Amino acid sequence: MITTIQTGGVCAPLGFSAGGVHCGLAKQPDKKDLALIVSEVPCAAAAIYTRNKVKASPLAVTKAHLADGTARAVICNSGNANACSADGEAVARGMCRAAAQALGISPRDVAVGSTGVIGQPLPLEKVAAAAPALKAALEDGWGGSDAAARAIMTTDLSKKELAISFVLGGKTCRLGGIAKGSGMIHPNMGTMLAFLTTDAAVSAPMLQKALRDVTEDTFNMVSVDGDTSTNDMCVVLANGLAGNPIVDAEGPALEDFTGALRAVCTHLAREMARDGEGATKLLTCTVEGAPDTRTARVLSKSVICSNLFKAAMFGADANWGRVLCALGYADADFDISRTGVCFASAAGSVEVCKDGAGVPFSEEQAKRVLGEKEIDIRVSLCQGGGSATAWGCDLTYDYVKINGDYRS
Amino acid sequence: MITTIQTGGVCAPLGFSAGGVHCGLAKQPDKKDLALIVSEVPCAAAAIYTRNKVKASPLAVTKAHLADGTARAVICNSGNANACSADGEAVARGMCRAAAQALGISPRDVAVGSTGVIGQPLPLEKVAAAAPALKAALEDGWGGSDAAARAIMTTDLSKKELAISFVLGGKTCRLGGIAKGSGMIHPNMGTMLAFLTTDAAVSAPMLQKALRDVTEDTFNMVSVDGDTSTNDMCVVLANGLAGNPIVDAEGPALEDFTGALRAVCTHLAREMARDGEGATKLLTCTVEGAPDTRTARVLSKSVICSNLFKAAMFGADANWGRVLCALGYADADFDISRTGVCFASAAGSVEVCKDGAGVPFSEEQAKRVLGEKEIDIRVSLCQGGGSATAWGCDLTYDYVKINGDYRS
Repeated sequence: MITTIQTGGVCAPLGFSAGGVHCGLAKQPDKKDLALIVSEVPCAAAAIYTRNKVKASPLAVTKAHLADGTARAVICNSGNANACSADGEAVARGMCRAAAQALGISPRDVAVGSTGVIGQPLPLEKVAAAAPALKAALEDGWGGSDAAARAIMTTDLSKKELAISFVLGGKTCRLGGIAKGSGMIHPNMGTMLAFLTTDAAVSAPMLQKALRDVTEDTFNMVSVDGDTSTNDMCVVLANGLAGNPIVDAEGPALEDFTGALRAVCTHLAREMARDGEGATKLLTCTVEGAPDTRTARVLSKSVICSNLFKAAMFGADANWGRVLCALGYADADFDISRTGVCFASAAGSVEVCKDGAGVPFSEEQAKRVLGEKEIDIRVSLCQGGGSATAWGCDLTYDYVKINGDYRS
Repeated sequence: MITTIQTGGVCAPLGFSAGGVHCGLAKQPDKKDLALIVSEVPCAAAAIYTRNKVKASPLAVTKAHLADGTARAVICNSGNANACSADGEAVARGMCRAAAQALGISPRDVAVGSTGVIGQPLPLEKVAAAAPALKAALEDGWGGSDAAARAIMTTDLSKKELAISFVLGGKTCRLGGIAKGSGMIHPNMGTMLAFLTTDAAVSAPMLQKALRDVTEDTFNMVSVDGDTSTNDMCVVLANGLAGNPIVDAEGPALEDFTGALRAVCTHLAREMARDGEGATKLLTCTVEGAPDTRTARVLSKSVICSNLFKAAMFGADANWGRVLCALGYADADFDISRTGVCFASAAGSVEVCKDGAGVPFSEEQAKRVLGEKEIDIRVSLCQGGGSATAWGCDLTYDYVKINGDYRS
């Protein structure tokens, strides 16, 4: 039984506080650009990182700091990716040190993330100077999570945040998360930045297992533009203050926890897709009846990655041939001659393709269905029990505008 | 020694004629939409097709007709892809029959291609009715190739055509080609439509070998939008009228012929990229110093496929971090810490990245370099002798506009 907590985000779990300040890395003078999340007590920690061979420096430092499976805090800036910069690792370690000094903990208990422009030196002195103010800004209520969630946004238009409660070993536990997405979104065993907190007691290895399982069908099923970022990272901290018997092995309790984690990550992944750069529509492609899950994942992701299809959705054009085309060039084996496609939204649904060929449909009804802000693309393969869902967004003039001159 | 023939296209080789008419498949009332290319004598024939699992019907029919390694004519329409339509193969066979009847040859000697909207029935009667006029429109001079090249265009803004002459076995031979590109361009062992003719005598197996080799580093190195079409096809006809000793085995003569074929295909591939839907700039990414050729191909193609990088080029923004990001997520092994990047054009060049990290550069000079219509992206890996070149175009408002409502 999973219940949404209306406010709280990463501060909803017991013992966590968070905050955000402006330290001067963002171009806008008042934009919060430095976030901190802290637990009162040590946490089991797990993380997943981008598979891009070009990895931003904070990822290497976080990986080293989380090697012992514990952490207490996350510091993260926006406005600069700290990637492809000569002294990047020293800067990332310096950010951990600044947070640790302000909090009176070890730098090895701090995870660090960055997002923003690649290849420009990150001025560490701005972070160091802001660390005391950042500590002073910590709040354990809704305001703290809100400030942290806003401080990690770049071109995001909306804050991504959720908290839920669930029962584990007879105890009510809470799990919250914040994330940023928007552009360069095509995670591969990682995500854009997502930070999750829970007061459930879960061992580090089980936390890592749950995170890996959940990432496969949440963050890894989102694509805004097919570009896998250098900075993708998802960190989860579990401080055990809920008092449940620790989840330290596979079994029903881990499954319950994984379900809770999946609920929060699914929400954050969907919100990333909805708020893709320039997006006007959330696209959800579900492939059912696939020979296996992998096939369903590859096919659903191929559809939401197709520029041609994304542009058609922007124009509310029921060009289902582009769906078949994208299915056809995906790296998967299936029988196209049994494939059906249906578009659906709050305005109804319209079947456009059956057995691999077009069926007559009302263009008027199709325009109505595709005129909505949330479009479902349902693909039925009728050749097995595998299914998967991928999320994306339309390709618009504004995507081009935003990315035509991002740095200036 | 390869010499460009100023006019002629597919009619430059001896014994070929071509033409194009309006038969009513294109939406525009006067747009030529049906092309025919014919040799006076039988030809050795070879072809390469899309790897998309969804294959348009004309490809299956062409494959069957070319199974004996011979052909005499190609018929091709624009305005309808004849893909994902229930009676597609019957229609494609019907198009071959219509051409064959008009020409007095066997339908099995006709190759057929289509391009346009996927999933709508192609009215065969329009093609059949136009066949006599199409035959009457055949010309063996420049006008014939021009008409055929225009008849296969869809959203292309410019005609793609080239003819060259070269010497083989002491005889002057000619090779010409026409192509269409524009959108849904990301060929994989095929291309958008390209039709090549030559009067060189080359056996069908050697013609196929040359075409396969050349396609790998010409058409397969072009991407406009990452969408591999259902209709990609490249057909080459060799009628032997130049009188050279037949090239029927590997050796220097095949190499010379392959070089000639590469020259024409490289030109057509570049022109496809330059005329990508909505494009304002031709992007040429060359990767040098790679461990091997495959790595260089994968990396150069990853750069010109990146939406983020393409949008940056539209905005003349020297955002080289996106080049590194695209290299990093490509499916290839290399050492990013030795990688350098340089942008160049007619306005000069600017080094932006060395040893995997940014170097100071003049933004003013970068804007000048990137303000040109042809941009070179030079990536030096310094880790071997592999090199490759890929061609693409920028991502613009007009790409979105063109594809937001293609069908109406």
